[in-house]
Amino acid sequence: MGVEVSYVIDTLYAIFAMTLIIFMVPGFAMLEAGIVRTKNVTAVLTINTLIYAIASLAFLLVGYSIAFGDFGADGMSKWAAFLFQMAFVGKVVNIMSGGVSERAKVIPLALFTIIMAAVVYPLVVNVTWGANLLEGTALALSMYDLAGSTVIHSTGGWALLAAILIIGSRKGRYTPTGGIRVIPASNIPLVTLGAFLLWIGWFGFNGGSVGSIASKEGADAVALTIMNTNTAGLAGAIMVAIVMQIRYGKLDLTMILNGALGGLVAITAGPDLYDIYTPILIGAIGGALVVFGVSFFDKLRIDDPVGALSVHLVNGIWGTLAVGIFASNGEDITFMGQLKGVIVVAIFAFVVSYILLYIINKVLPLRAHKDEEVQGLDVEECGVEAYPEFKRAF
Amino acid sequence: MGVEVSYVIDTLYAIFAMTLIIFMVPGFAMLEAGIVRTKNVTAVLTINTLIYAIASLAFLLVGYSIAFGDFGADGMSKWAAFLFQMAFVGKVVNIMSGGVSERAKVIPLALFTIIMAAVVYPLVVNVTWGANLLEGTALALSMYDLAGSTVIHSTGGWALLAAILIIGSRKGRYTPTGGIRVIPASNIPLVTLGAFLLWIGWFGFNGGSVGSIASKEGADAVALTIMNTNTAGLAGAIMVAIVMQIRYGKLDLTMILNGALGGLVAITAGPDLYDIYTPILIGAIGGALVVFGVSFFDKLRIDDPVGALSVHLVNGIWGTLAVGIFASNGEDITFMGQLKGVIVVAIFAFVVSYILLYIINKVLPLRAHKDEEVQGLDVEECGVEAYPEFKRAF
Amino acid sequence: MGVEVSYVIDTLYAIFAMTLIIFMVPGFAMLEAGIVRTKNVTAVLTINTLIYAIASLAFLLVGYSIAFGDFGADGMSKWAAFLFQMAFVGKVVNIMSGGVSERAKVIPLALFTIIMAAVVYPLVVNVTWGANLLEGTALALSMYDLAGSTVIHSTGGWALLAAILIIGSRKGRYTPTGGIRVIPASNIPLVTLGAFLLWIGWFGFNGGSVGSIASKEGADAVALTIMNTNTAGLAGAIMVAIVMQIRYGKLDLTMILNGALGGLVAITAGPDLYDIYTPILIGAIGGALVVFGVSFFDKLRIDDPVGALSVHLVNGIWGTLAVGIFASNGEDITFMGQLKGVIVVAIFAFVVSYILLYIINKVLPLRAHKDEEVQGLDVEECGVEAYPEFKRAF
Repeated sequence: MGVEVSYVIDTLYAIFAMTLIIFMVPGFAMLEAGIVRTKNVTAVLTINTLIYAIASLAFLLVGYSIAFGDFGADGMSKWAAFLFQMAFVGKVVNIMSGGVSERAKVIPLALFTIIMAAVVYPLVVNVTWGANLLEGTALALSMYDLAGSTVIHSTGGWALLAAILIIGSRKGRYTPTGGIRVIPASNIPLVTLGAFLLWIGWFGFNGGSVGSIASKEGADAVALTIMNTNTAGLAGAIMVAIVMQIRYGKLDLTMILNGALGGLVAITAGPDLYDIYTPILIGAIGGALVVFGVSFFDKLRIDDPVGALSVHLVNGIWGTLAVGIFASNGEDITFMGQLKGVIVVAIFAFVVSYILLYIINKVLPLRAHKDEEVQGLDVEECGVEAYPEFKRAF
Repeated sequence: MGVEVSYVIDTLYAIFAMTLIIFMVPGFAMLEAGIVRTKNVTAVLTINTLIYAIASLAFLLVGYSIAFGDFGADGMSKWAAFLFQMAFVGKVVNIMSGGVSERAKVIPLALFTIIMAAVVYPLVVNVTWGANLLEGTALALSMYDLAGSTVIHSTGGWALLAAILIIGSRKGRYTPTGGIRVIPASNIPLVTLGAFLLWIGWFGFNGGSVGSIASKEGADAVALTIMNTNTAGLAGAIMVAIVMQIRYGKLDLTMILNGALGGLVAITAGPDLYDIYTPILIGAIGGALVVFGVSFFDKLRIDDPVGALSVHLVNGIWGTLAVGIFASNGEDITFMGQLKGVIVVAIFAFVVSYILLYIINKVLPLRAHKDEEVQGLDVEECGVEAYPEFKRAF
Repeated sequence: MGVEVSYVIDTLYAIFAMTLIIFMVPGFAMLEAGIVRTKNVTAVLTINTLIYAIASLAFLLVGYSIAFGDFGADGMSKWAAFLFQMAFVGKVVNIMSGGVSERAKVIPLALFTIIMAAVVYPLVVNVTWGANLLEGTALALSMYDLAGSTVIHSTGGWALLAAILIIGSRKGRYTPTGGIRVIPASNIPLVTLGAFLLWIGWFGFNGGSVGSIASKEGADAVALTIMNTNTAGLAGAIMVAIVMQIRYGKLDLTMILNGALGGLVAITAGPDLYDIYTPILIGAIGGALVVFGVSFFDKLRIDDPVGALSVHLVNGIWGTLAVGIFASNGEDITFMGQLKGVIVVAIFAFVVSYILLYIINKVLPLRAHKDEEVQGLDVEECGVEAYPEFKRAF
């Protein structure tokens, strides 16, 4: 294939993949808006919107250079290469913001977004996919993480864990006597829509991360990647449906959808490495981890309204380790190499996020005032209720 | 064009088309969730989610081989060829599940999905688009059905008819004195969103079915196909709007959207065969058939909450026959050949679906208990209400 | 690159871009349905649906020939070229219909749509992007307007201004004592979803307008265009967020989203002309113009429920002039050439729209009867309420 043909096709492909990923912006927004209570919906949508705007701009102005050294790409338009990478950035903070919703204020989260997208996430990318500051040092990573089980999902998950430790649980979520109050999702169609927009976005996320489609091998790798990605999502959903039906006799849809997302996170580290059956196993385990993760964090009284820790953090780790289990070749991919990557990124992402959020919290409190939380964040933060005309049942 | 360039472009094109079709998953889900009453919304979303998960996995593990013999494709990545075909499968059951909503339980529908996606639909594909078991026999089909007016839409429609005959109508839908109680759609924005996601998905459905875009002729055929597909949808919507305005003086939006979908189903058998004007006629008749079909099935007391029989079954038949009327060439495309295809698939799909559903119904009753139906299926099936905070007017 | 390869790639690219633009149909529909009161939601969705159906069909049958002389295209399938242009048409009327919602009746708007799509918009396209009737006359335009800041957005905006002057403001919107009654948006998740579908559609709108991706230069131009388009949207959103936070201490999400859309409209005239920093300035000013535009039109008692005049008209003008400011080359792009284009299109679009709407209004009153307006348009126009089961708080 001629160089120009391949340049054009890969540019078109990167733009296609980027576009799919951008569908994840309304995807996260709808998912989270559907899960939280109606009184906090506008605030959730606002932070999602601002995250996309702020993270993308910060990455354009600062972050991309930190991650990759310079605008430039082999084999495709450098602007397309930038667009594809830019589409990832906000996701890291989306993961985090979802888990602190219903009590975190918008402005401090926006501040955190700037620093994450301009510096913290780009540093993670630098040492994994990018220019690699650590090259030649003892910390240099050999982790295989095609589309970011660790780089994106665990990073966001660690930031979320740091944030929950600082901000605490929602008022009334855990009772003094050890009980857990169920807070039902307010709008299930939105949750479903959001989950499927995320699912479709994943085809771009993982499929685009193969890099080049412009050869027979590239085309096969892209198609295999997308097929395996999808398969893991299917398996995650089915696994959770089975577990829920057996354990509770009820097909809890938000859990099933989170199971699909858990499977998708888990496959993200190596969707190009497996035959067509392994992703079923990886995704099914991913789904199970979501069910048990949600109970686990609740037992620890770590309040994560959307289940982001189970979906993104637990499965980000699982998916990265799975590459070491199922695709280790003893040379450039090893279980220990995967584990080291998980640990190094964990420490960096958690510690830096904790420090940042700690400082931000001292200057601009992350947490809404308790009256504001009871009333709902929408009125105080945004001045706009999500559904002002609908009479509330409670 | 070089072989590798065409391989890459067709792989990319198949992935693009597949992605558009996957938008039909939330498309069907939102459409149906918007049409049913709020108390059944979660159940509808759950079955839609499980259909995608189960049907796709069953097709990967079993169905694809039955339909096509083996993973493999000429001219594009075999995984992309699989993905494109996989995207179709769930649609057949989506068509069916929509029409039995508000009274059919999730688990038996999930069982039915497994068998449909693993065996029944693959057999239909086998004798139409696939390996062709019937080749050389008197039953061998010569039907032209580019993207499945019969293979997808009628098959799903016949399965639905079988299901409605077994499960019966919703409680209170038809009064003892012969009256028909109107049950209004609960969320019109969701219906609209769903319909347009389906419409967009159709571009992938029909456009992708052309197979190869990687030649001047292929590119022209794809673009013509998408244009004609869209035109039939436009004409269906406009036709219904005119009919509704004249007959009732009201522009009933759910009917207009169903009219568009009816036009889209009708064009699906031969969107590549017509000039730019014929699709207007085919789509307009398709729209009219939706309006009259909805009344017709209500007169027969066949209760189909989403109008799926009129949209998919009636227009699947009409679209397949329309190829025989407008594009017959007296050789490989004839009216009788189209009619034979319609009839053979009808008998097979209806009889097999009926038997299957009859057996399933004996083991695990399809129909929710009447108390559950009155309360709404969401609580009993899923344990989750769709809109728990919104106070209901009735 | 071979001629056939480039033909195929550009056809595929046009279809991809067209598809993204079609997402703007549900995009506009959801945005507007979310902003209006629940009692007018179905009517808004109905007109949006009919606009797409009617405008596209009228453009197929009549408009395209007026704009471009004949079906035909260099370098890609002529049907793909048509589809891409067809995707634009409805937008002009969407812009207009949004601004007269909650009081304009559907049928007269549908009539207006026919004439706009068949004749008025095609004439604007003719003298800017098309066959150019004005060539060689003193009125011949040299305006650079890549994707339609003026051709689409201002044209729609002028039509809207004409319509509002004829139809007047919503009952109760402005009090006799000079007050302005705030009418809150009824469904913020829909507004958000709609805005992001529009945003994504814009990648196709502007990216597709570059025309050919099938060369290194083409691929770079497309990627730069999409990047700059996105950047202006980011800057618009951030600017409005800052202004709202400073002025009111509230992050009004509908304003922030309109700010993004304002930035997107403003960049649309020349997204291929700028370096990566200028779009930040253009978009930020675009966002600011939305905030001030909304107050400005309210002061003039020009009632525009969705802010379409500020988003589309003001920013359409701003974006077209910005090309003259930031990308003037003193030869084919000059500030005066841009200004002339803005003025000629303004006069034509406003005068013709005013006359048309004036005549339509005499035959079929544009405005709903005051009882119908109080009750909401849904029942009378469509016979279908948007959310019949949800109890209304007021």
